[in-house]
Amino acid sequence: MSKNVSAPEIERLIQLLARLPGLGPRSARRAALHLIQNRDKLLEPLASAIRTAADKVSVCGQCGNIDAANPCSICTDPRRDPGVICVVESVADLWALERASAISSRYHVLGGTLSPLDGIGPDDLNIASLIERARAPNVTEILLAVNATVDGQTTAHYITDHLENANVAVSRLAHGVPVGGELDYLDEGTLAAAVKSRRPF
Amino acid sequence: MSKNVSAPEIERLIQLLARLPGLGPRSARRAALHLIQNRDKLLEPLASAIRTAADKVSVCGQCGNIDAANPCSICTDPRRDPGVICVVESVADLWALERASAISSRYHVLGGTLSPLDGIGPDDLNIASLIERARAPNVTEILLAVNATVDGQTTAHYITDHLENANVAVSRLAHGVPVGGELDYLDEGTLAAAVKSRRPF
Repeated sequence: MSKNVSAPEIERLIQLLARLPGLGPRSARRAALHLIQNRDKLLEPLASAIRTAADKVSVCGQCGNIDAANPCSICTDPRRDPGVICVVESVADLWALERASAISSRYHVLGGTLSPLDGIGPDDLNIASLIERARAPNVTEILLAVNATVDGQTTAHYITDHLENANVAVSRLAHGVPVGGELDYLDEGTLAAAVKSRRPF
Repeated sequence: MSKNVSAPEIERLIQLLARLPGLGPRSARRAALHLIQNRDKLLEPLASAIRTAADKVSVCGQCGNIDAANPCSICTDPRRDPGVICVVESVADLWALERASAISSRYHVLGGTLSPLDGIGPDDLNIASLIERARAPNVTEILLAVNATVDGQTTAHYITDHLENANVAVSRLAHGVPVGGELDYLDEGTLAAAVKSRRPF
């Protein structure tokens, strides 16, 4: 750590800002300075926004999304298809699918992936609650929108195995060429998958 | 802007975090999520640290430093040489000199540099208050620790001109090879300056 040269109140702020992803000690220092030098336009509004978030935002007891309401506004939205549950690893993935308006379903946030090497087993994830939700009579499809990584796919297989008695269709995201992607830059696995799943033009 | 997919309370937090230097819209989203998912360890402490900073920290009326005390703890430190005023462009530069323990003087923060193209004139900077401080009988030296940029040097010349009647020595930082620097990577101006100012070994 570099030497503390400012007031303890400022150092404390720098220290906490440095723990945000994307900010190191140096940029946290710059951010703190920027905050303090823009008291009315940034420091005060951020103070109240953080206070509000701390007071109002919580984890949805049903799906694991983060929202000001519990159950969250997605779980209670009557326009969404209650028959499909889209399973994601994290809230960030849920938000990404929502930004893309990719699906109008309910969600279920696992909170990570199975990872025996890191000691993360089924009980550390929201898998039991998913199995239970999948057994509801109106649920017809579970879309496993997990990352295309080894851990993600392991998790998908584990969940599929445990959904056998649940009387639901289990689906996964398609592999293929990203929209706007150039073939020359794609890995062989993706290209092979895109050819195998080719569709009529 | 990308679509808002989370609660307004969260979007507001993301929006404000995105205005910190070093964070864009995407990393602000990640930072907000990280904050909310680490309520006890990060969100609550940061809320109180920002509140404390907003309440206690202010600009020193004498030198322009930022501190919990006004005048700041540097201006009131009896161990520091009151005869030397080290002039810097920004609080960030002041902190950099303090981290380096480079000088045990008082400071004066200009708040920028003269920049006719950007419409920044002498009245927009803390120059008048510097001239006044320099006239105090116990002040013997003004060290112009401004950046070695065109604007920085213009500002240094302007200040030097206006200090003529103040009966103080005016100095500037030495140019030379950065400690740990390799000659091959240095620009010609720095190398020429380092040779010109060579010192006995």
